[in-house]
Amino acid sequence: MSGNTFGRIFRVTTWGESHGPAVGVVIDGVPAGMPLSEADIQRELDRRRPGQSILASPRREKDRVEILSGVFQSKTLGTPISILVRNVDVDSTPYEAIKTKSRPGHADLTYWLKFGHIDYRGGGRAAARETVGRVAAGAIAKKLLAAYGIEILGHTVEAAGIAVERELSPAEIRKNAERNPMRCADMRIAERMKKAVLKATSEGDSTGGIVEVIGLGTPAGLGEPVFEKMDAEIARALMSIGSVKAVLVGAGCEFARMRGSEANDPIVLRGGKLTTETNKAGGILGGITTGMPIVARIVVKPTPSVTKPQRTVDLAKMKGGKIELKGRFDPNICPRIVPVAEAMLAMVLADHMLRAGKINPAKFK
Amino acid sequence: MSGNTFGRIFRVTTWGESHGPAVGVVIDGVPAGMPLSEADIQRELDRRRPGQSILASPRREKDRVEILSGVFQSKTLGTPISILVRNVDVDSTPYEAIKTKSRPGHADLTYWLKFGHIDYRGGGRAAARETVGRVAAGAIAKKLLAAYGIEILGHTVEAAGIAVERELSPAEIRKNAERNPMRCADMRIAERMKKAVLKATSEGDSTGGIVEVIGLGTPAGLGEPVFEKMDAEIARALMSIGSVKAVLVGAGCEFARMRGSEANDPIVLRGGKLTTETNKAGGILGGITTGMPIVARIVVKPTPSVTKPQRTVDLAKMKGGKIELKGRFDPNICPRIVPVAEAMLAMVLADHMLRAGKINPAKFK
Amino acid sequence: MSGNTFGRIFRVTTWGESHGPAVGVVIDGVPAGMPLSEADIQRELDRRRPGQSILASPRREKDRVEILSGVFQSKTLGTPISILVRNVDVDSTPYEAIKTKSRPGHADLTYWLKFGHIDYRGGGRAAARETVGRVAAGAIAKKLLAAYGIEILGHTVEAAGIAVERELSPAEIRKNAERNPMRCADMRIAERMKKAVLKATSEGDSTGGIVEVIGLGTPAGLGEPVFEKMDAEIARALMSIGSVKAVLVGAGCEFARMRGSEANDPIVLRGGKLTTETNKAGGILGGITTGMPIVARIVVKPTPSVTKPQRTVDLAKMKGGKIELKGRFDPNICPRIVPVAEAMLAMVLADHMLRAGKINPAKFK
Amino acid sequence: MSGNTFGRIFRVTTWGESHGPAVGVVIDGVPAGMPLSEADIQRELDRRRPGQSILASPRREKDRVEILSGVFQSKTLGTPISILVRNVDVDSTPYEAIKTKSRPGHADLTYWLKFGHIDYRGGGRAAARETVGRVAAGAIAKKLLAAYGIEILGHTVEAAGIAVERELSPAEIRKNAERNPMRCADMRIAERMKKAVLKATSEGDSTGGIVEVIGLGTPAGLGEPVFEKMDAEIARALMSIGSVKAVLVGAGCEFARMRGSEANDPIVLRGGKLTTETNKAGGILGGITTGMPIVARIVVKPTPSVTKPQRTVDLAKMKGGKIELKGRFDPNICPRIVPVAEAMLAMVLADHMLRAGKINPAKFK
Repeated sequence: MSGNTFGRIFRVTTWGESHGPAVGVVIDGVPAGMPLSEADIQRELDRRRPGQSILASPRREKDRVEILSGVFQSKTLGTPISILVRNVDVDSTPYEAIKTKSRPGHADLTYWLKFGHIDYRGGGRAAARETVGRVAAGAIAKKLLAAYGIEILGHTVEAAGIAVERELSPAEIRKNAERNPMRCADMRIAERMKKAVLKATSEGDSTGGIVEVIGLGTPAGLGEPVFEKMDAEIARALMSIGSVKAVLVGAGCEFARMRGSEANDPIVLRGGKLTTETNKAGGILGGITTGMPIVARIVVKPTPSVTKPQRTVDLAKMKGGKIELKGRFDPNICPRIVPVAEAMLAMVLADHMLRAGKINPAKFK
Repeated sequence: MSGNTFGRIFRVTTWGESHGPAVGVVIDGVPAGMPLSEADIQRELDRRRPGQSILASPRREKDRVEILSGVFQSKTLGTPISILVRNVDVDSTPYEAIKTKSRPGHADLTYWLKFGHIDYRGGGRAAARETVGRVAAGAIAKKLLAAYGIEILGHTVEAAGIAVERELSPAEIRKNAERNPMRCADMRIAERMKKAVLKATSEGDSTGGIVEVIGLGTPAGLGEPVFEKMDAEIARALMSIGSVKAVLVGAGCEFARMRGSEANDPIVLRGGKLTTETNKAGGILGGITTGMPIVARIVVKPTPSVTKPQRTVDLAKMKGGKIELKGRFDPNICPRIVPVAEAMLAMVLADHMLRAGKINPAKFK
Repeated sequence: MSGNTFGRIFRVTTWGESHGPAVGVVIDGVPAGMPLSEADIQRELDRRRPGQSILASPRREKDRVEILSGVFQSKTLGTPISILVRNVDVDSTPYEAIKTKSRPGHADLTYWLKFGHIDYRGGGRAAARETVGRVAAGAIAKKLLAAYGIEILGHTVEAAGIAVERELSPAEIRKNAERNPMRCADMRIAERMKKAVLKATSEGDSTGGIVEVIGLGTPAGLGEPVFEKMDAEIARALMSIGSVKAVLVGAGCEFARMRGSEANDPIVLRGGKLTTETNKAGGILGGITTGMPIVARIVVKPTPSVTKPQRTVDLAKMKGGKIELKGRFDPNICPRIVPVAEAMLAMVLADHMLRAGKINPAKFK
Repeated sequence: MSGNTFGRIFRVTTWGESHGPAVGVVIDGVPAGMPLSEADIQRELDRRRPGQSILASPRREKDRVEILSGVFQSKTLGTPISILVRNVDVDSTPYEAIKTKSRPGHADLTYWLKFGHIDYRGGGRAAARETVGRVAAGAIAKKLLAAYGIEILGHTVEAAGIAVERELSPAEIRKNAERNPMRCADMRIAERMKKAVLKATSEGDSTGGIVEVIGLGTPAGLGEPVFEKMDAEIARALMSIGSVKAVLVGAGCEFARMRGSEANDPIVLRGGKLTTETNKAGGILGGITTGMPIVARIVVKPTPSVTKPQRTVDLAKMKGGKIELKGRFDPNICPRIVPVAEAMLAMVLADHMLRAGKINPAKFK
């Protein structure tokens, strides 16, 4: 397989298995002269780290980021940036016992079918640990975008059947999303989500939900029809995150039941600039950004690891049976997907800003 | 922009504006020696053609396909296949009157913002006519896949608020979908859809819906984590179709409210082969196909052309105002999106079959 | 195979067999608003056309170019430009007689080995006719580059053992190269070349030579180490032309026998700008342009079609024997390769100008 | 810039500056189940290491390779293989003194012009140290090719004006090339080369030469016309190596003076198989491999670092002047380019073996 590179100009290549020596990423295409430090990346990695609360798996990833190339005297060189994070606090013992038993809902089965030889320890390449590279690359993309006034926000809008019902302002998301373990920007709903999530966990089960990502300040004109439309690029980016089973842009599924007169955003002038009055389109029309906020939602399936017994097949004996997973797992992965989804949106926008000639490679000279 | 090529090995490049001289496509990467005729492609083009029923726009595209290269003695050469369809029965007069007025919900606005110079006639490159190239390429992909036992099906599962509620078998879809103008495989629901669609039209409005595509017979092991997972590739492909605002794989949005124990498909042996008992995953786990049918749904927004007056801006005068569209439009584009969505799924699968080494380039020698 | 697309942002896809219905090209990535007409392309196509003199094959290709998309009101739209040239004056009869006999030095053998099913008429996809698409795309690239002060020149510097011995100025090349059938910018040498070429032809044989291409006005800073260095990109582009067997940059093979102190171009200031005093590097250092003229040479093998009898194998009978080619062929293809090599250099530079953000996509708005 | 990835299916991404913390490479697309150890890679890295003899620069790179991902239980996983080599024995002091003075013939000037902010220590990204990643990736490509009977050989055929005049057999190259510091397979010539090289060094100067690489056992049918022909791919790969200024395939420059009847390799049957009697084409016809050995030569310019005084410009003061380099440098880099050129050829062949479906991804299962 050779699908570990993302982007055409801002190009990200991730690597690493969950219980291998390390995980990492190479980011090519970052303009020279941009200030960048390990702290910029560490901050985002800390957000994705498990073991932070009762609502996440207890693996205490220390995740100390190391920049191995592409940065000199605290500025980017224009050369590829290589980032390394060692895997520490790794205990593969629990996986030895089940190494021939595919865990339902996990990628064990398909990796087996595709590759034959797999790394069963901690999910190997298919584990959530793979997202370290994405988040590190996303941190750089965010920094680049910020220099052009673009901000990426993410938050959980539904979990365990509890949904945010009202529209939240960017200010609320900025203020609240990081203040509760669900990364829900409505503090009251966050509390209810948490309870519903913990209830399922206490019953040996897990829950799913919906995460929203927003690109504020995105200029009009990004996206390249007909196959690399902005929504197509975002859909690909977000759907590539483990556990994501649907991507919705703007009003998403609601469009199915709207009429055209409701669905169309009226075109208006605001401050002399062409824009739309509403933003049902989620900032994208005909695959090109309108200049309104980009809004996308992803449906996250429940954590596949549940302690309830499940039916599976022993691959060594090729014989059906049950599997019982032991240990503690993320009861709901929405909050941990938030920074990953932000990273993916940031990568897409950085790539398209460069492709559209809207990032001046000489800006930072 | 340079986003008009799709695929890594099975590579499709489309071109053409709605009212320009022609539209077409170049398909590179098709193995040599495969039987192929213009009739193979014409058949699929006839399915996407408008003017076929009361439910579609009355433009009578004749769409005579011409193969200009890549085929000799009714077999592919292994060289790029160039396909041309002349634009005939084109009347640009209605567009002259509104050429400076962006139609809400259309790509007029964003093409203007991106390119400045645009072809306003009939929507130009952003028109549905662009899909001729996709469908032609899809016809070739389907033929290639059929040689490996893979079949692509598509049908409308919801329109104008009327939804198919039960699961439909492949046999039903094959039998019914092409027998009614909604391309709905439940004939009774199709009738209700049609009425609801026509009601909206009679009120100067339009409707949306949901289309499902299925890949039967897909082998296990396709898809290349972590960025070119099968679901990511499908999401990108389907979201690149005009009017599509959401892509759902397998149980899609329902995953948000499921518990893990419900969401996981039990792993079982069937006929000595590893598979899953249910198929909530839609045939894809960890971004790799399981061997079960691939199932994806797309949410189609209502046709943006409605005869009701709408607010817009005159781009020449940079002044707000109203636009009133005249003429007849597709009241619901779900049925016309069916063959396009099938084509996109076929392209993705053909590309990944080749990438995975599962299509022997020498097979047809 | 799927190698018919060239470039990352300025993307060119060519198609067509020599005796098929047509040949053509799709060019994606051209900025919107650039003035473009069929005449711009026709002019370059006329330069590559055979049948122009005693020194070229007598096929009288009429080569009327037709732009099918991407241009509206004589300006580019930013959408893919599709160009079609019908194959006329095609006579496949001579090829019927030798259709199972691979012509030595031609691609017949390898196409057969790779594809099994081949188009033997006129060389099919491997014929020089394929370069129509390249030259058409090159015409557009040249026009785009000209708007940024970049000019592409090409000329024959050696043929049939007769070589230009002195350095020629751009003015001489502009003035003389198109004034003689060898496209040699030294009129006296051109005459000697012509005689040597015709002598070989009269003996039933053919000759090779060397062509030089130059990029004047190229800005410093183009090229993307470490794999997409400017010289690597040019080498790939020029070596992809049929009959080219070597690519030399700057002083080329002479570097092997130089000493470092001779090979290094001294760095100097000229008009306050950093540059080099000499240009042995051919305008490229470390894979990045210096701002000096880009200079590359290609070695062209003798036309493989000779009337002398040659040993080959009959593929139908799998039996060795002789082949005797009848008819008239290009006795030396250097002059016809000149416009093709120019086109390839123009494509590389257009692509890298766009990639480096040095072409403002909004320039022509 | 974003040119640090090579290959379409066998994809190699290198990173690292000469005096940064480390250099490395990520290799994606290697089939699962192939035996691979650090020793396989270390062996090749040891061949490229400087400090091995009087003929190479004295930096004592220890180059201990570390595999960080993609390998488990001594077999590849099918996931990206990340390889790290720490930079040790680095002394940047000599570069501090000349950090604003571009060294003629080096990439200092163009990196400055392109990026503004550069890593001047030891040549940064433009240094020969960058080839560690190439050689490591090449080691893996070689191992993969070996499983299909393909062997890559490399040797110096000319240095400091002393050239191998006779044809060398693969057996001689295997036996002799690693037995002398010039990597010349003719031991007698090697001795003369060495003397000529050392003479130039003693005069404060440096020398260039020619390196040949050979692909033995390559199957017929590799290469994808018209832009990704095998010779175009090889030209790009080899020209991307620092100091390479020309790439010649088969008889190379000699073709310019041959006649067609000499240049064409007669087609014959050998053991019932189609092949050519001679191999002037260097194993490639029409951009597709014939099955004969692939033969390519590269012209290597003299090491740009010479101790003689040279004219340059001080970038800080923007003022012309002289530069005098101190220290010891590779007097001739041909021998060190041999393993790098082998690596590049191996990568191209591995990529095309995969693209042509000739490597069964399930072979190693």
